[in-house]
Amino acid sequence: MSTLESRIRRKSLLKKVVPVEDTIQYFKNGMNLGWSGFTPAGYPKAIPIALADHVEKNNLQGKLRFNLFIGASVGAETENRWAQLDMIDRRWPYQTGKDIAKGINEGRIRMGDRHLSLFAQDLGYGFYTKDETGKGKIDIAIIEVSAVTEDCGLVLTSSCGVVGEILAIADKIILEVNTGQPSFEGMHDIVMSQDPPHRQPYLISKASDRIGTTYVPCDPDRIIAVVESKHRDKGRAFAEQDDTSEAIAANILDFFAHEVKAGRLPKNLLPLQSGVGSIANAVVGGLAKGPFYNLSVYTEVLQDTMLDLFDSGRLDFASSCSLSLSETPGFPRFFDNMDKYKDKIVLRPLSIANAPEPIRRLGCIAMNTPIEFDIYAHANSTLVGGTRMINGIGGSGDFLRNAYLSIMHTPSARPTKTDPTGITCVVPKAPHIDHTEHDLDVLVTEQGLADLRGLAPKDRAQEIINKCAHPDYKPILQEYFDLAKKTCLAKGIGHEPQLFDRCFKMQMNLAAKGTMKVDNWDI
Amino acid sequence: MSTLESRIRRKSLLKKVVPVEDTIQYFKNGMNLGWSGFTPAGYPKAIPIALADHVEKNNLQGKLRFNLFIGASVGAETENRWAQLDMIDRRWPYQTGKDIAKGINEGRIRMGDRHLSLFAQDLGYGFYTKDETGKGKIDIAIIEVSAVTEDCGLVLTSSCGVVGEILAIADKIILEVNTGQPSFEGMHDIVMSQDPPHRQPYLISKASDRIGTTYVPCDPDRIIAVVESKHRDKGRAFAEQDDTSEAIAANILDFFAHEVKAGRLPKNLLPLQSGVGSIANAVVGGLAKGPFYNLSVYTEVLQDTMLDLFDSGRLDFASSCSLSLSETPGFPRFFDNMDKYKDKIVLRPLSIANAPEPIRRLGCIAMNTPIEFDIYAHANSTLVGGTRMINGIGGSGDFLRNAYLSIMHTPSARPTKTDPTGITCVVPKAPHIDHTEHDLDVLVTEQGLADLRGLAPKDRAQEIINKCAHPDYKPILQEYFDLAKKTCLAKGIGHEPQLFDRCFKMQMNLAAKGTMKVDNWDI
Ligand SMILES: CC(C)(COP(=O)(O)OP(=O)(O)OC[C@H]1O[C@@H](n2cnc3c(N)ncnc32)[C@H](O)[C@@H]1OP(=O)(O)O)[C@@H](O)C(=O)NCCC(=O)NCCS
Ligand SMILES: CC(C)(COP(=O)(O)OP(=O)(O)OC[C@H]1O[C@@H](n2cnc3c(N)ncnc32)[C@H](O)[C@@H]1OP(=O)(O)O)[C@@H](O)C(=O)NCCC(=O)NCCS
Repeated sequence: MSTLESRIRRKSLLKKVVPVEDTIQYFKNGMNLGWSGFTPAGYPKAIPIALADHVEKNNLQGKLRFNLFIGASVGAETENRWAQLDMIDRRWPYQTGKDIAKGINEGRIRMGDRHLSLFAQDLGYGFYTKDETGKGKIDIAIIEVSAVTEDCGLVLTSSCGVVGEILAIADKIILEVNTGQPSFEGMHDIVMSQDPPHRQPYLISKASDRIGTTYVPCDPDRIIAVVESKHRDKGRAFAEQDDTSEAIAANILDFFAHEVKAGRLPKNLLPLQSGVGSIANAVVGGLAKGPFYNLSVYTEVLQDTMLDLFDSGRLDFASSCSLSLSETPGFPRFFDNMDKYKDKIVLRPLSIANAPEPIRRLGCIAMNTPIEFDIYAHANSTLVGGTRMINGIGGSGDFLRNAYLSIMHTPSARPTKTDPTGITCVVPKAPHIDHTEHDLDVLVTEQGLADLRGLAPKDRAQEIINKCAHPDYKPILQEYFDLAKKTCLAKGIGHEPQLFDRCFKMQMNLAAKGTMKVDNWDI
Repeated sequence: MSTLESRIRRKSLLKKVVPVEDTIQYFKNGMNLGWSGFTPAGYPKAIPIALADHVEKNNLQGKLRFNLFIGASVGAETENRWAQLDMIDRRWPYQTGKDIAKGINEGRIRMGDRHLSLFAQDLGYGFYTKDETGKGKIDIAIIEVSAVTEDCGLVLTSSCGVVGEILAIADKIILEVNTGQPSFEGMHDIVMSQDPPHRQPYLISKASDRIGTTYVPCDPDRIIAVVESKHRDKGRAFAEQDDTSEAIAANILDFFAHEVKAGRLPKNLLPLQSGVGSIANAVVGGLAKGPFYNLSVYTEVLQDTMLDLFDSGRLDFASSCSLSLSETPGFPRFFDNMDKYKDKIVLRPLSIANAPEPIRRLGCIAMNTPIEFDIYAHANSTLVGGTRMINGIGGSGDFLRNAYLSIMHTPSARPTKTDPTGITCVVPKAPHIDHTEHDLDVLVTEQGLADLRGLAPKDRAQEIINKCAHPDYKPILQEYFDLAKKTCLAKGIGHEPQLFDRCFKMQMNLAAKGTMKVDNWDI
C-alpha cells in the first residue's frame, strides 16, 4: 500500500494533515454535514467514528446532532452508531441500519426520502439547506479519497455519490485519505453539474463511454484538514441463493429468452440495472449461469455476484455509482484481482449514474425488489405496513421510470412468527406507493412472471393474481378482485375497482392475528 | 387557403386521392389504429366521422370495434362519438369526453394509462401490439397533414403526437390533407427515435433549439389513400378566471418572486410547463400580467392564455407537442396572427417534448392540476374517488418527476350537490396515487402555498394542512394527523403515520352523505 505522502500529490496539503482527534473541534451542534459515500462504499470512517467516540466518552448524546446529506446509506459503524448516540437530526435521502430506522420510526430522526437522482441535483440547487438569502450551505464536507492530484483534484474511492454537489455548497472540507486499501484512481468518470439554464447533455451512448475527468475538482482553500484512514468499507455479505431466489431468477431468464426470440431484445440484452438486497444479488447470480453473453451493466450499485458475472465471461462492462461489495468476501476478492476488473468498471456521480437521460437512451433493463406490490401494479419500496421506513426508495424510481423494461421481483409470500406464509407480497392495494401502475412492465415472484405491457388495469389484476400470487393467497385475492369489480362496475366507477372499506383488511388482519389470510372479505 | 394539389408536392400521391367514403372499406373489426393528434389538436376528423356515420347508418354498433393508439385525447366528435357507438375496444393512453369515460368506467372500453413519454417509446417498441413473433403492427395509421413534401415527408398540422412511432410499425397509411386551415409548415421539429442500443442524445439546451426536420419521413408505398379534409380542431374554450384561480396564480407568482430574490431562480425564471385544464390556463393568464419578462415555455400543450402571454410581450419562445387552442376564440386568433406567432413556437414529437432528458437539462418549472393531494404530498391525477377514470395521467408525471421545481395547484375544496365545500382536495390519504411524495416540491391552493423542499413527511403534513387546506377542513385534517401520529409513534412505526382503518373515511362519508366533512374520526 502506498504512503500518505505519495497519495497527496498536492504538496501544500501535507501541512494540513492532522490526527483525527484534532478535527473534532470543528463540529458544532446543528451543522449540515455532507459525506462522500454510497450504499456502504466510499464513506468517511475515521472522523465519524472518532466523533461517535467523543460523544460517547463525554456523554454528549443528544447535544451534538447533525443534518446528514450523503448519496445513500453508509456503513453501520458510522450512521447507525450515530443514531444510537442520538447524533442525527435530519438524514437525507436513504439509510440502512436497525437503530437509525428505529430513530426514524419513533420520530427522533427526520428522514427525507427522494429519488436519488433528484436528491443529487436538489442538494446542489441548495433545496435542502436553503435559507431566506439563498442556497444556504453544507457546513462541513467529509470526503474519503484515494489520492489528491497536483491540481487538488480529489480521486475518490469505492463510490462517487454526491461529492460534486456537496463541494459546490460546502463551506469547509475535510479529507480522509484512505491508505488502507489500493487506490481507485482511473476508475471514476466525473462531470460537475451546472445549474439550469446552463446544464449540458451527458453524451453517454453505451455503459463504457467516458465523458469527464478521473477526479473531482476541489478548491484547496476550503480544505481545513486532512486525515489518514485505514478503515475498510463495511458492506454486508448476502445469504446464499435459495430455492425462491433461484426460481425468481429462472423466471426472469426465461422471459429474456422469449423477448430475444421475439426480436424485442438484442441477443446480448440491454444494459442491466439491478437493485439492492438479496433477491437482486441472486438474480445477477442467475445471469452468471445463464445463456446471455456480451452483457453490459448500467446501474447504481455493484453487489458481490457482479464479480461472478464478470468471472463467468458474460459481462463486458459495468457502469455504476458505487462498488457496493461486502467487506468479506467481496472487497478482498476485488482487490486481489483489481487489474482484471479495473478497466471494465467505471464509477459515475449519482447525478449521472441515475439520470433519466442515459437510462432512457441506453434502454436499461431495470430490476428491483419491492416490499410488496398490488394487483394493479403499484409497488411499495419503502414503508412496511405503509408507515414504517426500511431504507428508502433509493434509485429504484430513477431506473424503473426510465428503463426499456421495468421489472420488480419479490418472493410471493414472507413468513411471520406464526405463519410461514403469513405475509403476501401481492396485495389488493399497496398501503404506500413508491412506483405507480404507469411505471412497471413486469412483476415476478417464484410463482411466475406477469408481463403487463399493454394490459388495462382489470386485465393486469387478473394476470398478476394468476402468475404472481402465492397459492395460499390466490383464492383470497381473486375473491376481493371479483367483489370489487362487481361493486364498482355496477356503479359505473370501475376503471380500477377497489373497496375502500376493506382494501387494507389484510394489513389489519396481520397486525391483529399475525397473518394476512383474512377469513372473509366481510366488513 | 391553398388547394389540395399545391399541398401535395409528392405528385405521385395525387392519384391516391379518394372521397372519404372510399376509405371505409379498409377498416375491419378488431384492427389496431394509430392516429395523429394530441389533446384536441391535429387529429384526423374526416375519416373518423365518416366511419362513425357508417356505423350509425348501418347499425354496426359493437360490430366494428378498434384499438386506438393516439398521442393523447382527440376531439369529442371523433373519440367520444366512437365511444357512443361502441367502436372502441382498447384506448391508449389518454382520452377526454363524457361517453368515452362512461365506457371506460362501466368496463366496456379497456383504457391503458401511461406516462406519455413512455407511451410514445413503448408504442414504437411494439409493446402494445406485440405478438409471439415480434412487435406486431398498427393495421392502419390515419394522419392529418398540412402538406406532403416532394420526398414524401409529412408536414403535420397543430400537433406532433406519436406520428413517428405509429409510422414505424404501421402496415397501411391514410392521409387527411387539411386544406381548411393554413399550413403549419415550418413549425415542427421532427426527430425519429431509434430503438436501443442505437438511441442518440437530444441536443436541446434551450426551448428554441431545433434538432430535426420540419416533416416526418414516410414510406410512400404504404400510403393507400389520401383524403381532403376541411374540418377544424374542436378544442373547448375555458371558463373565465375566477377568484379561486386568480388566488392560486397570485400565490405562485409570489413564490417565484421570492425564489428570484433568494437567487434560486433566474430573473426570467426557467422554462415553464403548464398542464391541461382551467386552473393551468388561469395560471398562465396570471403570468401574462406578472412581473417576469423574457420567459420561455417548454411544455406539451399550449392553451389559449399562452397567446395572451405572447401578446403581453413577456414570452420569448414556446416549445410544445401541440397547439391545444380552443376552436373559438383560440384558433381564429392564432390564424389571424400566424406570422407573429409562427417563429416563436416549435412543435415537437411527444417522445421529445415529454422526454426526461430535455426537461431535466432545461430545468423546467412544472405546474399541473391534480384531482386531490394528501397530507404527505402524494397526488391523484386520474381516478376520482380512487376508481373512476377522468382523463389519464397525461404528461404530468413526465414533467413533475423531472422538473427543477414540481408544482401542483388545485382549489382547496370543490362543491357537491348539497355542500359548497363538500369535497376537500387535501385528504389524509389519496385513494389513488399517480405522483409520489418523492416527486413534488410545492403544493398550492387559493389558501396558500406549501414549499415542501427539504421537509420530512410529518413536517410536510403540518405545512400542507397549515397552508393549503380549506378552513372548513383544517381542524378535521389536523385531528386525523394528530391521532395518526400519536398512534403510530407509540408503536414505533411512525415515519409516515396513517390509520388504515379510517384513512378513507372522508371518501366513504362523501359516498354516503354527500360531503367529506366527517363528524369524527371514530371507527
Ligand atoms: C425492499 C427491500 C428492503 C428488500 O430487500 P431484501 O434484501 O430483498 O429484503 P429482506 O428480505 O432483507 O427484507 C428487508 C426487511 O424488510 C422486511 N420486509 C420486506 N418485505 C416485507 C413485507 N411485504 N412485509 C413486511 N415486511 C417486509 C423484511 O422482513 C426485512 O425486515 P427485517 O430487516 O426486520 O428482517 C430493498 O430492496 C430496498 O430497500 N428497496 C428500496 C430501494 C431500492 O429498490 N433500491 C434499488 C435501486 S438502488
Ligand atoms: C385533474 C384535471 C381533471 C383537472 O382539470 P380542470 O379542468 O382543472 O378540472 P375540472 O374542474 O374541469 O374537473 C374535471 C372533472 O373532475 C372532477 N374533479 C376534480 N377534482 C375532483 C375531486 N377532488 N373530487 C371529485 N371530483 C373531482 C370535477 O368535478 C370534474 O368533473 P365533471 O367533468 O364531472 O364536472 C386535469 O388537470 C387532468 O386531467 N389532469 C391529469 C393530466 C395532466 O395533469 N396533464 C398535464 C400535463 S399534460
